[in-house]
Amino acid sequence: MASGEEVANKQVIFKDYISGFPKESDMYVTTGTIRLEVPEGSKAVLVKNLYLSCDPYMRTRMTKMEGSYIDSFEPRLPMVGYGVAKVLDSGHPEFKKGDLLWGIVGWEEYSLITATETLIKIQQTDVPLSYYTGILGMPGIAAYAGFYEVCTPEKGESVFISAASGAVGQLVGQFAKLLGCYVVGSAGTKEKVDLLKNKFGFDEAFNYKEEQDLDATLKRYFPKGIDIYFENVGGRMLDVVLLNMKLHGRIAVCGMISQYNLEQPEGVHNLMCLIMKRIRMQGFLVFDYYHLYPKFLDMVLPHIKEGKIVYVEDTAGGLESGPAALIGLFSGLNVGKQVVAVARE
Amino acid sequence: MASGEEVANKQVIFKDYISGFPKESDMYVTTGTIRLEVPEGSKAVLVKNLYLSCDPYMRTRMTKMEGSYIDSFEPRLPMVGYGVAKVLDSGHPEFKKGDLLWGIVGWEEYSLITATETLIKIQQTDVPLSYYTGILGMPGIAAYAGFYEVCTPEKGESVFISAASGAVGQLVGQFAKLLGCYVVGSAGTKEKVDLLKNKFGFDEAFNYKEEQDLDATLKRYFPKGIDIYFENVGGRMLDVVLLNMKLHGRIAVCGMISQYNLEQPEGVHNLMCLIMKRIRMQGFLVFDYYHLYPKFLDMVLPHIKEGKIVYVEDTAGGLESGPAALIGLFSGLNVGKQVVAVARE
Repeated sequence: MASGEEVANKQVIFKDYISGFPKESDMYVTTGTIRLEVPEGSKAVLVKNLYLSCDPYMRTRMTKMEGSYIDSFEPRLPMVGYGVAKVLDSGHPEFKKGDLLWGIVGWEEYSLITATETLIKIQQTDVPLSYYTGILGMPGIAAYAGFYEVCTPEKGESVFISAASGAVGQLVGQFAKLLGCYVVGSAGTKEKVDLLKNKFGFDEAFNYKEEQDLDATLKRYFPKGIDIYFENVGGRMLDVVLLNMKLHGRIAVCGMISQYNLEQPEGVHNLMCLIMKRIRMQGFLVFDYYHLYPKFLDMVLPHIKEGKIVYVEDTAGGLESGPAALIGLFSGLNVGKQVVAVARE
Repeated sequence: MASGEEVANKQVIFKDYISGFPKESDMYVTTGTIRLEVPEGSKAVLVKNLYLSCDPYMRTRMTKMEGSYIDSFEPRLPMVGYGVAKVLDSGHPEFKKGDLLWGIVGWEEYSLITATETLIKIQQTDVPLSYYTGILGMPGIAAYAGFYEVCTPEKGESVFISAASGAVGQLVGQFAKLLGCYVVGSAGTKEKVDLLKNKFGFDEAFNYKEEQDLDATLKRYFPKGIDIYFENVGGRMLDVVLLNMKLHGRIAVCGMISQYNLEQPEGVHNLMCLIMKRIRMQGFLVFDYYHLYPKFLDMVLPHIKEGKIVYVEDTAGGLESGPAALIGLFSGLNVGKQVVAVARE
């Protein structure tokens, strides 16, 4: 199609702020129009979206917040999130027509991106492009920074990962195995537990929904305690993990997906363990670690190509499937990184 | 009195394990006898106790625990804790008759100490000897290590301290002021609040018992948020502080005195702030920092002598007053460091 032409642009619109569990009906699909051309003099980039990323943090943007680390979504405008896209037109010196990029885009077929600071040009295209929503994108940097920088791991340490088959967890576990750690993961289905053990090479894995007594479960897998807990879920799991940490343990708090839809987050009672066991518990956001991205790519790309690190994605087809895919994260329907495939290149 | 003589030895006996709030009747005073001589061939030290220290951590030793960082007290034996003592006889090469020392002693007039590894010889005697239960003893090192090592403070940062007039808090606040921080403390009486502002030089202080809305209180004193929280109390205060931390804030968890007597500790709900604000929350125990003691003395002794650091003690007279003094910590009866004066040198 010729640039400058006005074409139909399917969009997923965020209806209005919510509380509690998100529903598909909190979003709707509509069709607008867009000119496939960057306005003259603008430094914007006009892209065709190929893959959209569904990430748990997006839930926080669906609630009206003031002074948070990230803005709330704008009601009646398209959802926004990480995506992989192809440049159709560009007024920005770093991007030209035909380039592939990843960064924050709209949940729509085409996006005119004026906030270009999150966009990163894709240099390596001999991997699945969808990887730039996951292993080679934000979750990949989160896993890398969270594990190597926040957890300060050492060979032989005992590592526990919750939501371990998710976009970040599956990578953290593989990084920990590469370093020579003992690695156990929890997940919410038998299928995910099998993945952890058979695909990602975790030493052990369990389905937390089938355990009657999580404290006993952790004691079974970690008779000497946990050195490193990579926290993705929060709530009761965190409370029980605290009881099972070793002296001088570290907890990297990446996410608390079990808490995002609660009006009042659950209370965590065992924080006195922080003192008795001299535990460091540290929250982090991937935004603080983007400077490590080149170093991260240098490390992870060879491992991917040699098959030493694998990545499992759960791909929903078509923009219309976006709302259900996003919401599925919160009941654990996704198996691996949840992606929405919007268009072929 | 001649050494070798058998003399009366008044003792405070720990009756039996407890749950909930400790009572005076959980201990009792009795009089035994002791030979004022170290058995031949033993490396023990025989001391006359001068000052005993009442510290909140002692509550944890009154409960039966397995695998904790510290052993439970032995029922029907004397209480043990930090103290200042004079050596009457010694089989240990590092201590000789007449030496003054501090470390773990029994709650009694005379102690035969076989576990000598905690004992430190007092070199500087031109300060009040009771200081070695506080500013120059365990609480001093805790304040020093907790503030400088765990909080990684910088000039100009905003520091909040709970239980701020206590054995540790009063020092942390003065260290923070010396560094050029903005310092606010909370305490539970008007008298303590006055001490914080007028004696210890805190910028602001408040009585948490008189505040209707602690969140609003913290927002009033920290309109831009808290960089460093020195945690001594736990529970609800921690929950509200989490909401008021700044980005990249640090929480040093030294104690949680509000929680020690609860069957089930209170739930802390706002841990998601750890992620959003990239907070590091770190528990610590003074035992890990004793190697810093000489460095600490070099820093703090000149400040004491120049009057740049002051220290307030609450001294109970006589071994018999020990149980009430210890228990008073948990309702905040002490004003400053709680000491029991057992004997004159």
